[in-house]
Amino acid sequence: MTALEKPLANVKIISDEKRGNGRWLSLHEVKFTDPSGTERGWEVCRRISPGSKEGRINSGPSIDAVDVITIIKNSRGEATHVALVIQYRPAMGTYTIEFPSGLVDAEEHVSEAALRELEEEVGFSVKYGHSVKVINTFDPIAYEPGITNSCSCAVVVEVVMEQEQLFGPNSMRNPSLEEDEWSLQVAILPLQGLLKTLQELQFSVGGYSKLVLDSRLYTWALGRELGY
Amino acid sequence: MTALEKPLANVKIISDEKRGNGRWLSLHEVKFTDPSGTERGWEVCRRISPGSKEGRINSGPSIDAVDVITIIKNSRGEATHVALVIQYRPAMGTYTIEFPSGLVDAEEHVSEAALRELEEEVGFSVKYGHSVKVINTFDPIAYEPGITNSCSCAVVVEVVMEQEQLFGPNSMRNPSLEEDEWSLQVAILPLQGLLKTLQELQFSVGGYSKLVLDSRLYTWALGRELGY
Repeated sequence: MTALEKPLANVKIISDEKRGNGRWLSLHEVKFTDPSGTERGWEVCRRISPGSKEGRINSGPSIDAVDVITIIKNSRGEATHVALVIQYRPAMGTYTIEFPSGLVDAEEHVSEAALRELEEEVGFSVKYGHSVKVINTFDPIAYEPGITNSCSCAVVVEVVMEQEQLFGPNSMRNPSLEEDEWSLQVAILPLQGLLKTLQELQFSVGGYSKLVLDSRLYTWALGRELGY
Repeated sequence: MTALEKPLANVKIISDEKRGNGRWLSLHEVKFTDPSGTERGWEVCRRISPGSKEGRINSGPSIDAVDVITIIKNSRGEATHVALVIQYRPAMGTYTIEFPSGLVDAEEHVSEAALRELEEEVGFSVKYGHSVKVINTFDPIAYEPGITNSCSCAVVVEVVMEQEQLFGPNSMRNPSLEEDEWSLQVAILPLQGLLKTLQELQFSVGGYSKLVLDSRLYTWALGRELGY
């Protein structure tokens, strides 16, 4: 068992004041005392929950979205491709390449959200006769813990499909994008040499001022290929 | 070469209005027209640049911080451990476990920032006779492209150190924490079985309401172990 150097001491929240808000995001200043009694502050951006104009005031992590790590296997069980999406991200001011992802609806399980996003964005679904399974779901993982309490949940989904069903006129994909996903396109990339392919793709469209890699996609690819 | 389904069309920014700000973060509403001429809006949280009270108004990604993927190798060249940090994150309202990380100072190269953070947070440095090398640096990667233009840069650093130099009374680590890093502790975990170790550690302290895994750490570990 891994032992901590010291226990995770409790922190006492003193105040949580709003510094601004829109319809989707709100900005807060949190004050708290550390275990020695020293008063400290931090600024936080929170997503505003559906049905609330106040933003999440509660401390603690919350799963806002799923990232769907979409692995395509052929009928021999070999993992061949990963399905990614490219879209314009107004918060970035650029396009990004990411795992398919989206906000989890109220009352929706993360697995359901993952399969829904996969159907909408990529066009894979058991409805269309595809073989799709969720192989695991997980706890919240922090998007950017220096700024926000917003968390993702990484859901790994395996889809069984032959290469000729992925590309070209016989593609079996059938996406149904929402109106605000006007910029979204799918990129189905070979797993082998993924990092290099991502970098070549980025270079071919003008570099990172035009297309930025999502940090979860990048570190996943790094973990696969770095050989540690 | 991977071909896009459609080119990455230019987007015209119409306006960028502030909806609130603190000392470190600001909230904006961006309006833009998509290639069909439809006007759209999005809310954005930006970090406020040092020396500026206005926040970054420019569109486009910016490297704000480094994540230092710190691999420990023994003198036989075998990668044995990864160095992580656990700290209280006021934005999350919980502790997190992450790669060592920190903001890049003005005029600092990301490699310099990575080695500085490694020295401060973990206590590894060539200054102390450790063998440290940066094996690659990369472009910005998006922290949470749905919310913010803030980007990280993942820097892989290899440190050569024997197991007996990592732990216990003969530990050669010499961290020098900043005052606001009162909660930070190092966790040096074996690479083998990392995902399981992370989940056991999380469980042992009370689950994700107490300790949340950073999404870059989690997907990196998933990429290493999932076998795709």
